[in-house]
Amino acid sequence: MNTRTERIMKALEERGLSQMLVVDPMSIYYMTGIYIEPYERFFGLLLRKNGEHVLFLNNLFTIPDGVELKQVWYSDTDPVMDYVMEYIDKGSKLGVDKDIKARFLLPLMENQAATGFENSSLAVDLTRGIKDEEEKDKMRAASKVNDQAIARFRELVKEGITEKEIADQTLEIYKELGAEGFSFDPIVSFGANAADPHHMPDDTVLKAGDVILFDVGCIKDGYCSDMTRTFCYKEVTAKNKEIYNLVLNANRSAIAKIKPGVPLCELDKTARDIITEAGYGEGFNHRLGHFIGLSEHEFGDVSLTNETKAEPGMIFSIEPGIYLPGDTGVRIEDLVLVTEDGVEVLNSYTKELQVIE
Amino acid sequence: MNTRTERIMKALEERGLSQMLVVDPMSIYYMTGIYIEPYERFFGLLLRKNGEHVLFLNNLFTIPDGVELKQVWYSDTDPVMDYVMEYIDKGSKLGVDKDIKARFLLPLMENQAATGFENSSLAVDLTRGIKDEEEKDKMRAASKVNDQAIARFRELVKEGITEKEIADQTLEIYKELGAEGFSFDPIVSFGANAADPHHMPDDTVLKAGDVILFDVGCIKDGYCSDMTRTFCYKEVTAKNKEIYNLVLNANRSAIAKIKPGVPLCELDKTARDIITEAGYGEGFNHRLGHFIGLSEHEFGDVSLTNETKAEPGMIFSIEPGIYLPGDTGVRIEDLVLVTEDGVEVLNSYTKELQVIE
Repeated sequence: MNTRTERIMKALEERGLSQMLVVDPMSIYYMTGIYIEPYERFFGLLLRKNGEHVLFLNNLFTIPDGVELKQVWYSDTDPVMDYVMEYIDKGSKLGVDKDIKARFLLPLMENQAATGFENSSLAVDLTRGIKDEEEKDKMRAASKVNDQAIARFRELVKEGITEKEIADQTLEIYKELGAEGFSFDPIVSFGANAADPHHMPDDTVLKAGDVILFDVGCIKDGYCSDMTRTFCYKEVTAKNKEIYNLVLNANRSAIAKIKPGVPLCELDKTARDIITEAGYGEGFNHRLGHFIGLSEHEFGDVSLTNETKAEPGMIFSIEPGIYLPGDTGVRIEDLVLVTEDGVEVLNSYTKELQVIE
Repeated sequence: MNTRTERIMKALEERGLSQMLVVDPMSIYYMTGIYIEPYERFFGLLLRKNGEHVLFLNNLFTIPDGVELKQVWYSDTDPVMDYVMEYIDKGSKLGVDKDIKARFLLPLMENQAATGFENSSLAVDLTRGIKDEEEKDKMRAASKVNDQAIARFRELVKEGITEKEIADQTLEIYKELGAEGFSFDPIVSFGANAADPHHMPDDTVLKAGDVILFDVGCIKDGYCSDMTRTFCYKEVTAKNKEIYNLVLNANRSAIAKIKPGVPLCELDKTARDIITEAGYGEGFNHRLGHFIGLSEHEFGDVSLTNETKAEPGMIFSIEPGIYLPGDTGVRIEDLVLVTEDGVEVLNSYTKELQVIE
């Protein structure tokens, strides 16, 4: 197969495994280019040391013509796990996807389809965490659309508008800009609503002195973008100015530290210390960032407990925030790519405090 | 707890199990009235013979005030499966949900949290398959809204309209009628598109002589409806008249056979024989029906291979169809409730062939 699959096979070998049953549809897509949403049916890719990987598919699925990978098709009345078992090496351990369900896993165990079963998803997830050149280009393109989109969203802001009225126009704009759709439902928060990091757009009407927080992202060519910008409407209160500058400083300081070898927890600490020392530590109640790629949230995060070191090819978000319940909130988020000697910020939309008149 | 949970505990006992870890959010809702969409986080209900059931919840979940069930809360950095293990009886087998994922199940197995692990979802699913009085009332109400809705959808049909233009108006109508939303995305198919049972509404424009197939359903008070009606537009071709009458006969004949004790496969056979004998057997390429309730597709079906006998309280669909690729298609679907001595059809919207002018 391709180099992505080879990297995963190598990671499995390093874990002492010669075979793995992958069921996460996005991981299968990552390796094969075939995306299927199987719902309750079984869809799996058996990776085998001899390189003869096997895809298991229900007759109701459709795949593009010309797929060279070995395929085993089954119908709803077939014993699909018996078919899978025929291809597993009984004399070795089987790595299994963290997401495989009991109704598929237990029959394999009961029939001693392998000498042992272990969750080997890290071999896949850590590989997906290091983007290759094609993926980097697609991630850059998705964030470029997001930069263009937020400029358009800003233009929607006007007297009397509600969060929902803005949010309802965002999908159309993304599509006009060439995106396939949202990478997640857009967050548009006015004033005190910005104090809830996951606020859903509602009928709140914009008023002078409010912040306007956009946390938005699209999918472009299969890859996700994700960015947050916070504006002020007509007036900038002293409090909003203070916390905006703190969050901006936290965002920039964390980004400035990024280079290969830096533990991800240090990035979180850098941002968190700035906010905590100013007395707003309690107002920053989430991790600094998360990995992203084919999925909007991928394995791996930028948090105080993750000692993983930054490596070239990692792409994650840097999104410090300060939330003051009942009052206001600010978050500033960019996606960043770790390079050979530093960092490339995938978003270029300005982070300077902007007042919309 | 309540009688639903007691019925499940009894079913577990009959399978030789004294404990079960349930993770299907809808099954937990069925027993507790608490609905949570946990995404990648763990959410489970441990059923225990002593009646002291335990709910495991992430701090990020929210539940209503006043829940009396024992709760164990955990944070993202806590070893939640260790907490679960503290409540499992190590000296007995553990029944597990068919949907529990490897990353939660394998740690329990590796730590020998029980003497054995088996998929015991049938104890839950077969119980959910027999509706209680409260559920029957809610299912009747959901289908009543669906009957009203399809009369409204029929009124949307007019010269030059597309499938998508009709489909886009259906959600609003359901909401006006008091439903919470769709139980599944509506199918609106014109002409040859009706030959694909799962056709998604597109920009096809209606023309004289087309069939108009609506397969639609809503959620009302948490319960799902699901009904199909096929109309003709302006003209009825001889072919459409012939297959409509066959499908209607198949629908009515299967329903006429329903009473406690009848194997579900006989219902499928009754409908299928009528269609096959008329030479259209290949055009009926799916099972006759599926169970339905809190979810639009629940465990259990009405197919040639299911020898389960009808029991009072079962609710399922009866939906024969004939599909002629590239030409036309007809399906007529009702939800039915098995009663003590026969059947109650939950849909009352007419099944006579109707021509929309």
